[in-house]
Amino acid sequence: MKMHLGEQVLAEFYGCSVSAINDPGLIREAMLEAARRAKATIVADVFHEFNPHGISGVVVIAESHIAIHSWPEHGCASVDLFTCSEDMEPGAAVEYLKSVFQAERVEIQVVKRGRLDSMIAAPGAAFVESVV
Amino acid sequence: MKMHLGEQVLAEFYGCSVSAINDPGLIREAMLEAARRAKATIVADVFHEFNPHGISGVVVIAESHIAIHSWPEHGCASVDLFTCSEDMEPGAAVEYLKSVFQAERVEIQVVKRGRLDSMIAAPGAAFVESVV
Repeated sequence: MKMHLGEQVLAEFYGCSVSAINDPGLIREAMLEAARRAKATIVADVFHEFNPHGISGVVVIAESHIAIHSWPEHGCASVDLFTCSEDMEPGAAVEYLKSVFQAERVEIQVVKRGRLDSMIAAPGAAFVESVV
Repeated sequence: MKMHLGEQVLAEFYGCSVSAINDPGLIREAMLEAARRAKATIVADVFHEFNPHGISGVVVIAESHIAIHSWPEHGCASVDLFTCSEDMEPGAAVEYLKSVFQAERVEIQVVKRGRLDSMIAAPGAAFVESVV
C-alpha cells in the first residue's frame, strides 16, 4: 500500500572534477540526461551560474523535480531527486551523474514526502508531528 | 564550527485551501514572497501547472533553492528550502506559506547537506557512507 505521495533522494557527490561541476552547459545537459535516464518527463528547467563559481539548477519534471547545487571550490555537488512516481529510477540518474562528474563517492539520504495517512484523516486529528 | 555546506528544510503543508494551492499565480507570488521573508536573494524562477491540477515550481536563490509541489486533490503541498547561508530564516518562509495556504498543520524534516569533513579529507579515504 502506498503510504506517501513521493520520495526524495538527496545525493552528495564528493571528489568531483572541478571543471565538470563548474561548467554550466555540461551541468545542464547532464541534469537533463539524468532526468531521461530516471524515466522522468521533462517540463521545464532553469540554471544559474554564480560568480565567481558554482552552478544551481532545477529540472521540473512531471513527477516533481531534480535540482543541483555545485561547489567547485569543494569538489562537491548536491543533487535532489524528488519523485512521485514509482516507475521512476532515481538510481539510474545518480549513477549517470557520478560518472559525468567523475565523483569519487556518493552519499545518499532518502526521505519520504507527503504522508497519505495524514491527508485522509479528519481535520484536527492529533498526530505525532512538528507543528510550526 | 560549520560542519555542513547547507541545510534543507522539507515541509509538508496539510489541510490546505484547495483553491490556494491550485492557483499558479498565487503560488508563484507566495513562493517569491516566502523567499524574501527568508532573507534569500532571488535569481530565477520557474513554475508549471499540471493538467488537470497541481503546481510545481522552483525559485533559485543565491543561497540554493526553494521548491514546491502541490496536490490540490489531497489538500497538500510539499516545500523544500535548501539554504547554504546561516543568515537565512527558512522558518519565516514556512510561517508565511502556512498562512497563505491556510494549512491546518505543517510537518518539518531538516536534513544536513554536504559534509565539510568529507570534502577536506584525502581522496580515497574511507568513510561511513552509502556508495552507489
